[in-house]
This record gives sequence, C-alpha cells and structure tokens, in this order.
Amino acid sequence: MTAYTSLHTRFDRIGKLRAVAGMLGWDMAVMMPTGSAEARGAQYAALEVTIHEKLTDPALADLLAGAEGDNALSPQERANLAEIRRNWLHATAVPADLVEASAIVNADCEMTWRQARADNDYAGLKPKLQKVLDLVRETAQAKAEKFGCSLYDALLDQYEPGGKAEDIDKLFGDLASFLPDYIQRAIDKQATRPAALLPDGPFPIDKQKALGEKFMHALGFDFTRGRLDVSTHPFCGGAPGDVRITTRYGTDSFFESMMGVLHETGHALYELGLPADWRDQPAGQARGMSLHESQSLLIEMQACRSAEFFQFAAPLAAEIFGGSGPAWTAENLHRRALTVERGLIRVNADEVTYPAHVILRYRLERAMIAGDLSLDDLPGAWNDGMQELVGVVPPSDKDGCMQDIHWPMGAWGYFPTYTMGAMTAAQLFQAAKLAVPEIPVEIAKGNFAPLLGWLRTNIHGKGSFASTADIVTAATGKPLGVDAFRTHLETRYLA
Amino acid sequence: MTAYTSLHTRFDRIGKLRAVAGMLGWDMAVMMPTGSAEARGAQYAALEVTIHEKLTDPALADLLAGAEGDNALSPQERANLAEIRRNWLHATAVPADLVEASAIVNADCEMTWRQARADNDYAGLKPKLQKVLDLVRETAQAKAEKFGCSLYDALLDQYEPGGKAEDIDKLFGDLASFLPDYIQRAIDKQATRPAALLPDGPFPIDKQKALGEKFMHALGFDFTRGRLDVSTHPFCGGAPGDVRITTRYGTDSFFESMMGVLHETGHALYELGLPADWRDQPAGQARGMSLHESQSLLIEMQACRSAEFFQFAAPLAAEIFGGSGPAWTAENLHRRALTVERGLIRVNADEVTYPAHVILRYRLERAMIAGDLSLDDLPGAWNDGMQELVGVVPPSDKDGCMQDIHWPMGAWGYFPTYTMGAMTAAQLFQAAKLAVPEIPVEIAKGNFAPLLGWLRTNIHGKGSFASTADIVTAATGKPLGVDAFRTHLETRYLA
Repeated sequence: MTAYTSLHTRFDRIGKLRAVAGMLGWDMAVMMPTGSAEARGAQYAALEVTIHEKLTDPALADLLAGAEGDNALSPQERANLAEIRRNWLHATAVPADLVEASAIVNADCEMTWRQARADNDYAGLKPKLQKVLDLVRETAQAKAEKFGCSLYDALLDQYEPGGKAEDIDKLFGDLASFLPDYIQRAIDKQATRPAALLPDGPFPIDKQKALGEKFMHALGFDFTRGRLDVSTHPFCGGAPGDVRITTRYGTDSFFESMMGVLHETGHALYELGLPADWRDQPAGQARGMSLHESQSLLIEMQACRSAEFFQFAAPLAAEIFGGSGPAWTAENLHRRALTVERGLIRVNADEVTYPAHVILRYRLERAMIAGDLSLDDLPGAWNDGMQELVGVVPPSDKDGCMQDIHWPMGAWGYFPTYTMGAMTAAQLFQAAKLAVPEIPVEIAKGNFAPLLGWLRTNIHGKGSFASTADIVTAATGKPLGVDAFRTHLETRYLA
Repeated sequence: MTAYTSLHTRFDRIGKLRAVAGMLGWDMAVMMPTGSAEARGAQYAALEVTIHEKLTDPALADLLAGAEGDNALSPQERANLAEIRRNWLHATAVPADLVEASAIVNADCEMTWRQARADNDYAGLKPKLQKVLDLVRETAQAKAEKFGCSLYDALLDQYEPGGKAEDIDKLFGDLASFLPDYIQRAIDKQATRPAALLPDGPFPIDKQKALGEKFMHALGFDFTRGRLDVSTHPFCGGAPGDVRITTRYGTDSFFESMMGVLHETGHALYELGLPADWRDQPAGQARGMSLHESQSLLIEMQACRSAEFFQFAAPLAAEIFGGSGPAWTAENLHRRALTVERGLIRVNADEVTYPAHVILRYRLERAMIAGDLSLDDLPGAWNDGMQELVGVVPPSDKDGCMQDIHWPMGAWGYFPTYTMGAMTAAQLFQAAKLAVPEIPVEIAKGNFAPLLGWLRTNIHGKGSFASTADIVTAATGKPLGVDAFRTHLETRYLA
C-alpha cells in the first residue's frame, strides 16, 4: 500500500464518521427530545474526539511526507492530498481535550439558547455563551500559533479555506462605500410605487409544506436522497448523499417558509452535486462556506426573486392556497419579494440590507475574539451597531444579539461568508446567463435544468479540487469583486 | 490511573459510540430516505469497525488481567469488569473485516426486505438473505471456537448472555407439552362466549397517536427523554437517555397500534430505568433480551390485557374516538384483547399462540445455522411448521417467512428470547402483585406508579450487575420456569 493509498483509506473512515456526526447534528436540531441534550452532547463529543484521534495519529506526518513525494499521483489525487494536509494541520493544532470540551460546551449552550431566546433571557444565556467564547478563543490561539496568523483568520479558515480578514475588509469596504446610499435610494424608489399587497391568510402549514416540496422538485432536489423538516433555525444538514433541509412555518404568511426552502434547497443541490466518487474524501467536499452560500443565494435571491420565477410560482401558490385577486398576481408577489426594509432580523432581511446585518456581526465577533468587547457589553454594542448600519434598534435581545444560532453553537468566523456568498452569487448568475441565455425564460416555465446543469459543471462537480478563488475565476472569467453585486442591486432596486 | 479506571474510561467512549450507532439505526428505520441506504450502510459500518477496534485494542488483555487482580474494586466495579470481559471476548473472536462486511450486508438486506416484503418477492430477497446467513454463520463459527460452544449458542449469547439452547429446549419442551392442548381448549372456551364486537372505524391516525401518548404518559414514559414515531416494524431504539419507540397504524382498527405502543413502552421504561450513573458502562445496560422482552410483555400482556386496565382504557378510547355503545364497554374491549386465534403473523398473535410462532422460528433458525436447512427450502419448511404448530398455512411468503425483520437484519438467535420473556413476565407480575397487592386496583385508575416502582427496584435498576437468572430469582424467589405462565394462561383463558 502506498502512502497515498493509506491516507485515502484513513480519510475514507474519517469522512464516514463525519457523515455520522452530521446525522447526529440534524437529529439534535430536528428530532431530539429536550431532556437528551446533555447525553447527546457527550455522545457527539465522543465521536468528535474519535475523529480527532484519527486526524492526529502520529503516523500521518510520515504518510503525508511520503505521499507528497510520490510523482505517480494524478492531479485529482494531488488536490485531495493538499486537502488532507489542510485537515491534518487544523486537527493537530488543537489538543484532544479542548476538542471534547468544546463539543460539550457548544451543544449545551445551543440547547440553552433555544429556550433563552424564546424567553428573551440574555442573562440566562450569557454564562454558557462565555464558556463557548473562552474555548473558541483558546482554539483560535492554538491554530493561530500553528498557522502564523491572527486569531480571527484562524477561525475564518475553518469555514473559508484561505480566507483572510484583510481581503474581507477590502470587499466589505467597497460594499460599505455605496451600501448606505443604496439602501436609502432603494427605499425612496420603493415609496414611489404602489405597496405590495399581502395575500390574506391563514396559510395552513401542510399547504406551505406542499408548496415548498413543489419548488424543491422543480429545482431538481432528489427526495430519495434527502428530506424537508422543521427546526427553529432553518439549515441544510445531514450527510453526503442524504441531504436534509429544514424550514419554519408561521400561518400568517407563506413567504418566509417558501424563501427559506428555496434558500436551503440551493445549499442542498450543491451537496447533492458534489463528485460522488470522492464522497468521503476531503477533495469531494464542498469548497467552503462562501461558495456554499453563493449556491443558496443564487437560487433564493438571484433566480427566485426574478420576475421570471414569479410567472411560474404565483399561479402555483394561488392554486395551493386557493388564492385569487390582485394580491396573487406574479407582478404583486414579485414586488413583495423585492420589498426593502430596515428590519431587525438577519434571516428575514432583504438582499439590500442583509450585508449591513453581516458587517455588524463581523465587526462584533472580531472585537470579541480580539478581547476588545465583552459579553456584558454585547447587547449595547449590538444595538448601537444596528442603529448605525441598518438604521433601527431592536426592542429586545431576543430580536437583537440573541437571534442567531452561530455564536451559541461555537461557529465564530462564519458570518462574513454570507455576504461573500451574496457577491459570488451575483457574479456566478451573471456568468451563467451569459453562457446559457435561455436560463431566465426556462425558469419562467418552472424548468431549472439549464441553470442546474451550468452549476453542476462549473461549481458543484468541482468539489474541493481547486481553491474558491480559482473556481470562481474559472466560472466567471474574473476574480470575486463587488461589481456584479452592485450592478444587480442597481438593476433590480434603483432602475 | 489504575487498570480498572483505564478500562472504565475506554468503555465510556465505547458506550457513547454505541449510543451514536443506536441513533443511526433509529434514523435508518424511521427517517432516512430510501436512496441513502447504501451510503448509510457504509457509515454505519465505519462506526461499527471503529467500536470494534476499540474493543480489540491489544492493550485490553493486560488491563483486564490487571483489573481482575485488583482487590480494591467495589462489587459494582467487579460486576462491570465481568461485563467488560464478556464484551471483549465477543469482539476479539471476530476479525474486523468480518464485522465491517456484516454491517454492510445486513443494512443492504434490511432495506431490500422492506421492499421485497411489500412485493411478496422472496426470490428477490433470497440472494441478499443468503449473504447475511453466510456471514452470520461465519461469525458464529468464530465465536463458537472461542467460547467452546455450538454455533447456535454462540449467537444466542449475543442477545441472551449465558443462554443455552439446552435450557431453552427444556423450557420450550415443558411448554410444548401443554400448549397445543391449551390453544384448542382456549378456542373451544371462547366459542362458548359471545364474540367480541369490533368498534366501528375508521380510526384517524392522529387520534390513535393521541391515545398511544395518553397511555405512555400514564405508564410513566418521560417525553423529554424519548419519542413516539412510525416505522414498518415497531421497535424500541435510540440511545441511553433518549429512548425512541415506534408503532404502525391502520385506520380500520386502533387495537394493534395501541397494543404496539404499550409493548414498546414496556421496553422503553426498562431502558429509562437503568442506573443512570452507569449509563455508558457495560453493567449499566439492560441485562439481556429475555428480560427486556419480559418488560414489554409484562406491560402489554400481563398488565394491559387485564380487566382492570380496560376499566381505565375503555372510557379513554371511547372519548378520543367518539365511540359509544356495546362495542366500547370495558368488558367488550377486554374480551377483544383476549381473543385467541390461529393467525399468520407473529406480531399480531395472541399470547396463547405466540409461543408456537416462536418455537417455529427457533427450530428453523437452528436448522439454518446448523446447515440442515437451505434458504431454497425455507418457505416450504415455514409453511409445514405453521401447519404443525399453529394450525394454519400462509397463502404467501409476505405473510410467511418474510414477515419478520430479524433474519434480514442479521439478528439470528434472537427469537427464543420472546417466549422466555413471556414466561419471565408472568413470573414477575405474579411476584409484583404478591409484594404490592394494590397494583391491579391502581391500574384500574390509570395509576401505574406502584407497578413501575416495583419494576424500577427489582428489575430496571439492576442493570447488568447480576445475571438474568439471579435477577429473576431475587425478584420472584425462584428460578425461571413455566408454572407462572401456565397458571396465567389457565386463569385467563381456560377458567
């Protein structure tokens, strides 16, 4: 057995155990009874430590060196090997007891958050969130030393391989140079038009679910390889080849659950389109979170808030809910989909204000990781930042600094990928329409196959065989920038 | 760290990984989309092999020897150590590649069975079942050599620690000496009474579920530590501290789902009553399958087919389904619960004919394991055996040799524990009522606390700190025999 083959076999096992961890995570959010949280945290930790032990096996250093000197490797094997090394570097930076402690503390805090958010009880959440933050900083410290980078970049690299705060500062700086002006102009423009009518509810949950499933079928989601369920915070999870998305329902509107399903389906199509022959290998995984988010936003924001989409979607929704009249026209529902508002909740935000929500979180988490902002001061800093960036102040922490699952579950360094994803989505959709001009007219018929085909070839099937930057450049002919996103906002909201 | 402490730590991890495997198994039967079966089989196998590696770590032999020479161990630690050795013996008997191959083949066959049974396609199932049987025999061979026992006893020990076919032959022989006569007499006796009336359906599934949940609450099931769902074959699964039962519903009768829920709740109460401080240790697990089945049958058959139970249950069912009239009286529903019939399906069988179904399977699987019966001849042998033992012949394999999940999923040597459990249940319930005379009158009020209290103390809380035989003898004052079961059948069906 060559050194590379040995690594391949070892990472096959690791990949499958990670898939198991993915299933546990899905169950925890969707199915698990509340009293099982502590036991589940310990089970999850045992699995994570087992994976960590395999990643930090002392034999790996020699195997990596041996494989890297093997000239017979194919380009794909070489790319896989580079990802194996990246995995190994992340794992060896952190001691096993810290990995185990983090898993327990994160699971415990996440469960507490579910209740504390409902109760608007920041004081109840804070001690557990402090434990999470302490261990996240300890992890960042360990990785930063190994990689020779800042604490924040060490965390960012977990979600966005090769990502640098310096680059994000540049992109977000470009964005911030026109965004406040665009928000105001979009709102002003909107005020000159008739307000969108709200279809009359209530909208039964089973019908909302049926509508979501219709869209999932149209988009090409394979229900023999995935599910749609309900959770507090919508997500796309499960395991490779068994991709499970969630949404949440309110009976006074179907719009949020519908857009949530479209968003998560975008994530799911990426997962289901990854190269199946490399399913359990590092190079067979999704490239990183900004590209992942680009896939959800390309579906939700670019494709499914277009005028063409509502030609398909409006009659379907009217049929399922038995709606009729001016609130149910494609034109009205499209106008509803493009409503811009200075709102409190990130996941409900429109695409014009969304980047402002993300910039806030990015600034705050950088400050907390750097030790420049304490959890005592977080609610105040949040509210100040909301005033400055979005122009509204939350009346309660429930709708303020407690709204997101990310920090309680230990996902620090994740937030900027949302807006990098939005910019990537705009650039990719522009390129896709240029390459396959019939994409919009086919979407109007409910046929997403031309779009999905382009994405399968240019994004999904690439796995992690190239860097995010190389994949985006190859697909669009240029590096990621703000131009396509800016043009998109102008065309849609300011014209 | 002492040798014992080291073993304790290692088995803590193993216990948690087994809990994870339990969750995966639940998901596979209840939630997983069909197209994910192959990937899931591979994930499950990776987890099983990981557990197997930990159980067969070469360091364990010395640690076991060291711990067994440690005079400072408490009696509980010593009992735990004995269970650790038993686990180790089972694991070291079987090579890792056989464990992995079995997991894949079993998962694949189980999924095939789900469809093949629906299609009545024994020919389609047979090749995969042959693979399962081949690997089961290979496993039995490896264990039999290690333990110096027969192939069948080696398999039996996996489900019934210390169980011997010789003892089962004796118990089942005692049973067979009176059972055919009892079946005939019970049917004759029944014919002298008015037939039970069947309440008119349909019975909506949501109401059946609501009724099942009412019973689960009454029995003391903690819904913050478990769930009720649906699967093709009802079971009790999940993980320690997160115990999940399933049932299946038909809308023409609520009786089967109700009895299924009561049965699985009996299993669940045992799991939830195990000593929590030892949750992930071998001695903290349920003792074995005959004791497990005794707990489900004590609830379903002994307690919940009594006249007292229907004083509580009949008005509740009538209220939920809006039923009234003679079919809904406690007396009629009780008579319905005691109907004896020579039926085709084991899981629907009454407690008089049930042992005949089990003796058939026990004989057939012993013959198949011994190599005296081929899968080609199984359907014929099944039908012959049904004629002889139960007195009816299935019109199709779907309702014949394909009806059970056990063989397709690789659980050979399991069946006899059902009837050993039935005998144990009778003996335990007799002892419980002698010790706590108010048990029946409290059941009539829907109060199961006195019964649950006795079970918690005498069975559930014992974990695996003593042998099945010692637990039964301590709880009832005598070793397991057929007398209590025989008396029970006489009193209920022949008087």
